[in-house]
Amino acid sequence: MNVTVYLAGEIHSTWRDEIKKKSAALNLPVEFVGPMEDHDRSDNIGEEILGEQPNAVFKDAAASSFNNLRTTVLMQKADLVIALFGEQYKQWNTAMDASAALALDKPVIIIRPEKLHHPLKELSRKANATVENCDQAIKALSYIFE
Amino acid sequence: MNVTVYLAGEIHSTWRDEIKKKSAALNLPVEFVGPMEDHDRSDNIGEEILGEQPNAVFKDAAASSFNNLRTTVLMQKADLVIALFGEQYKQWNTAMDASAALALDKPVIIIRPEKLHHPLKELSRKANATVENCDQAIKALSYIFE
Amino acid sequence: MNVTVYLAGEIHSTWRDEIKKKSAALNLPVEFVGPMEDHDRSDNIGEEILGEQPNAVFKDAAASSFNNLRTTVLMQKADLVIALFGEQYKQWNTAMDASAALALDKPVIIIRPEKLHHPLKELSRKANATVENCDQAIKALSYIFE
Amino acid sequence: MNVTVYLAGEIHSTWRDEIKKKSAALNLPVEFVGPMEDHDRSDNIGEEILGEQPNAVFKDAAASSFNNLRTTVLMQKADLVIALFGEQYKQWNTAMDASAALALDKPVIIIRPEKLHHPLKELSRKANATVENCDQAIKALSYIFE
Amino acid sequence: MNVTVYLAGEIHSTWRDEIKKKSAALNLPVEFVGPMEDHDRSDNIGEEILGEQPNAVFKDAAASSFNNLRTTVLMQKADLVIALFGEQYKQWNTAMDASAALALDKPVIIIRPEKLHHPLKELSRKANATVENCDQAIKALSYIFE
Amino acid sequence: MNVTVYLAGEIHSTWRDEIKKKSAALNLPVEFVGPMEDHDRSDNIGEEILGEQPNAVFKDAAASSFNNLRTTVLMQKADLVIALFGEQYKQWNTAMDASAALALDKPVIIIRPEKLHHPLKELSRKANATVENCDQAIKALSYIFE
Amino acid sequence: MNVTVYLAGEIHSTWRDEIKKKSAALNLPVEFVGPMEDHDRSDNIGEEILGEQPNAVFKDAAASSFNNLRTTVLMQKADLVIALFGEQYKQWNTAMDASAALALDKPVIIIRPEKLHHPLKELSRKANATVENCDQAIKALSYIFE
Amino acid sequence: MNVTVYLAGEIHSTWRDEIKKKSAALNLPVEFVGPMEDHDRSDNIGEEILGEQPNAVFKDAAASSFNNLRTTVLMQKADLVIALFGEQYKQWNTAMDASAALALDKPVIIIRPEKLHHPLKELSRKANATVENCDQAIKALSYIFE
Repeated sequence: MNVTVYLAGEIHSTWRDEIKKKSAALNLPVEFVGPMEDHDRSDNIGEEILGEQPNAVFKDAAASSFNNLRTTVLMQKADLVIALFGEQYKQWNTAMDASAALALDKPVIIIRPEKLHHPLKELSRKANATVENCDQAIKALSYIFE
Repeated sequence: MNVTVYLAGEIHSTWRDEIKKKSAALNLPVEFVGPMEDHDRSDNIGEEILGEQPNAVFKDAAASSFNNLRTTVLMQKADLVIALFGEQYKQWNTAMDASAALALDKPVIIIRPEKLHHPLKELSRKANATVENCDQAIKALSYIFE
Repeated sequence: MNVTVYLAGEIHSTWRDEIKKKSAALNLPVEFVGPMEDHDRSDNIGEEILGEQPNAVFKDAAASSFNNLRTTVLMQKADLVIALFGEQYKQWNTAMDASAALALDKPVIIIRPEKLHHPLKELSRKANATVENCDQAIKALSYIFE
Repeated sequence: MNVTVYLAGEIHSTWRDEIKKKSAALNLPVEFVGPMEDHDRSDNIGEEILGEQPNAVFKDAAASSFNNLRTTVLMQKADLVIALFGEQYKQWNTAMDASAALALDKPVIIIRPEKLHHPLKELSRKANATVENCDQAIKALSYIFE
Repeated sequence: MNVTVYLAGEIHSTWRDEIKKKSAALNLPVEFVGPMEDHDRSDNIGEEILGEQPNAVFKDAAASSFNNLRTTVLMQKADLVIALFGEQYKQWNTAMDASAALALDKPVIIIRPEKLHHPLKELSRKANATVENCDQAIKALSYIFE
Repeated sequence: MNVTVYLAGEIHSTWRDEIKKKSAALNLPVEFVGPMEDHDRSDNIGEEILGEQPNAVFKDAAASSFNNLRTTVLMQKADLVIALFGEQYKQWNTAMDASAALALDKPVIIIRPEKLHHPLKELSRKANATVENCDQAIKALSYIFE
Repeated sequence: MNVTVYLAGEIHSTWRDEIKKKSAALNLPVEFVGPMEDHDRSDNIGEEILGEQPNAVFKDAAASSFNNLRTTVLMQKADLVIALFGEQYKQWNTAMDASAALALDKPVIIIRPEKLHHPLKELSRKANATVENCDQAIKALSYIFE
Repeated sequence: MNVTVYLAGEIHSTWRDEIKKKSAALNLPVEFVGPMEDHDRSDNIGEEILGEQPNAVFKDAAASSFNNLRTTVLMQKADLVIALFGEQYKQWNTAMDASAALALDKPVIIIRPEKLHHPLKELSRKANATVENCDQAIKALSYIFE
């Protein structure tokens, strides 16, 4: 019984490393996938592949083609999605990924600091579980295999 | 051929009235539905129905039960979703609604000021169309019936 | 915007009448459907249609064919399911109906006395909302149309 | 051809061990998964991960988040569900699991003592097969591979 | 609450008229649809539309295009399928229609003389109910609206 | 029993008028929908709504947003798709519409001159029926209601 | 790229052995599954597991529970279904299996003697391909891997 | 994490070899599948299996049965589709394959020379990404695994 977990959410901190290390320490039978974590590369991938675009909006549109392609392929392989919301940035693509996963019947764990409870209340209520930090998410993940 | 449109997004401005008036002026065969627009009532509906909750997080969880219930019933009736993102607030439930609609194969028009193009790029790329104001959204809606 | 509501659950009390009257008093645009409420007829319908069966187990199997047929046709028409659990009886078919509705993406409101929270905790967590009496369920239903 | 079987139902007896041993004795190519079988841990997992909750209802809500998460991940991996109903307890989550599996087109075998035929009649009629003990369930499972 | 019923099965007897008359006599809110009942026309419709075909096999292939087109459009509109098996003919398209309906989660009532129980046993077990004559089918249909 | 038919395919001839007139002459209970038939408007709709685009490729991308939006809303309402292929133009969006309809289980009738049989052979084999002219398509449509 | 093929249809001849041998001779990467081929065991499996039933109809109902369970588990694993119709017997379960597979988007090859073309015309038209013997079916299967 | 990619589109050039070589050079964990690339064999496979057909249209119909069978089995195994449009031929089956993949939620990359932007604009807008050559497609594919 192997489980693939998509790690959605912010790419400016090292939370994915923390999750992966703690999962490995517990020998959980989990393979992690997720978005491009190099923020610059994620922003530039459209122009890198298609060449220079007319302006910043079109540059973004081009980049998002390839970011969505990556997410779609990998999330369709996932059995579970963990989505982390931090206090900075709009993070609408995190909400998009978590919501798409739920609509496709993939279980979702949300990690968010308690202070974000109000703007996340509807998404939290739809998610299978909401926790406040990576340690709690690992306990939830580990509980599946106990 | 009647079409039901769910108007997702911010509830602090009068954009829904603008959309409804302009649609009516064009005699579009459209019925509009959407979330509770009275912000206080939307925040308090959980305690109003279930009584006082232990703290603000549980108050939010209770409210979101009924907000999600409303959204789910009405969005399942919708043939099209128009989602407006403004410059204020986190608006993660707007992203959640738009993404859920897309995952369920319901067409989505996003309205957002151009300056929000970067954080919305992945969701915009998935949406059927992205416009910058209500007039453009009405033109897109009207085009369906011409 | 008319909504069809399936009223699942116990057929030994008059809770459906209470729901219907209160909905009518509020002029909610709702049509209610539900199971056969005459308990004896529900138990005997198999033999009534197919004739005498070899024993009580086969009598039950025959009856459940027609009860499930009715439920399936009517629940597929429903936009929302309200399921009431009382303190008596096993009520596994109530749990079955609520769970099937959720698996088919139909929103579910559970009504149960607080004292049943423990055995219903997993189903309550999956349901869109859980309330304790018909008045609260009517408030939840009414909130959809405000 | 390997088959994954989810063993839903009561966690107060050793029926899962019986099923697993008899399956192993027959060298069936089956992997078994199921819920947390330590009842106390299943009841406490919410507080264990999220900390103390305001009261017993919220404690249950928290626990059910993680119990449902586990069930959802594992049942989505399952090719077949065996659900055992005993004479004690409400077992609404067993009915919930069996019904969700059926709604998702996963085949279900119900094990129940004959005396429970009446309250289980509608669920039995929907299930692929109903038997009375683990030996019969093993014969049904074994028949798939003969 | 109106219900559309597709009447699948043999087109050499008048069973559809019997069903329709008895339904009308009970004022059931049911609209009936079904296949072309003029057998010759059903066999010739391919050549009638496309012109003469090279041989009997191709004539059949052409006819079945239009027969399947009709069935697909009408059955997708149906809430319920009643399929009658008689003692003559292969009736594989009746089995095809009933099985397709079941796979698409449309409830199915099978009408068959008891003597056909053996060859129909697997399909009967999948159907929601199996009866032996039109009167019983009408009782089952009527029970949905009581 | 009303049926909605989406008329996909070339917008340079008057075949839709022919279909509509002949359907009306037969009093078929059919409502027809379809793409924008004013070719220039279909090509310019993106710039009309969003303003001038950087070049012809981006102008096309903008136009296709709104053309696909229209098609998606209307085709989801359709019970049947008739797709006409003529001898001119690439008509890849006709193939796209017919294939999407088939993948979504909507029945499809293809109209094409016999000389196009080779490049259309795979799509014809998937379609419910292939005919050579509007008269034959009307006969097929009419056959559904006889 | 391994492919699982369900071999539906008559269990009175050795056609499955022929298919398996010819596939093995070509080293096709195919695993074959199918129904219980011992006809008596298939008829008796219900009583074997559940004990003596009241009469032949109930014996059949019991047996079909376990036959359908086996078919459902194995066909859900299949990438392709080959269904053989012979000249004897009603074979309604063969039509049921082929039709269920098609409704679930599983490709189907039908094998039937040409003389059965008329009663099988609608099912043949829905199937991906119809051939007349095992050699042709093997060529079709082999073509997938060339 | 292995990914299966279906290479749809023209079979008259060596673009599949280019994609496969470049993928191998990058050690991407990808298995490629696709249609029969021997054009004559693809056109003749119907008569090869079923024998001589009455005329060219029926020969095409027979061939397309087996070509569609192959495509259906292999595309259902695919996680991603790359579809190449060249300047010659109608290529309606390429549009059919790309559109079916999109309707089934399989991500699609289109490769087309810029000059084809106009006739492909609606399909490009639906695809996850559109590029102009195999090098760009490989960069997009490689980006999924970085």
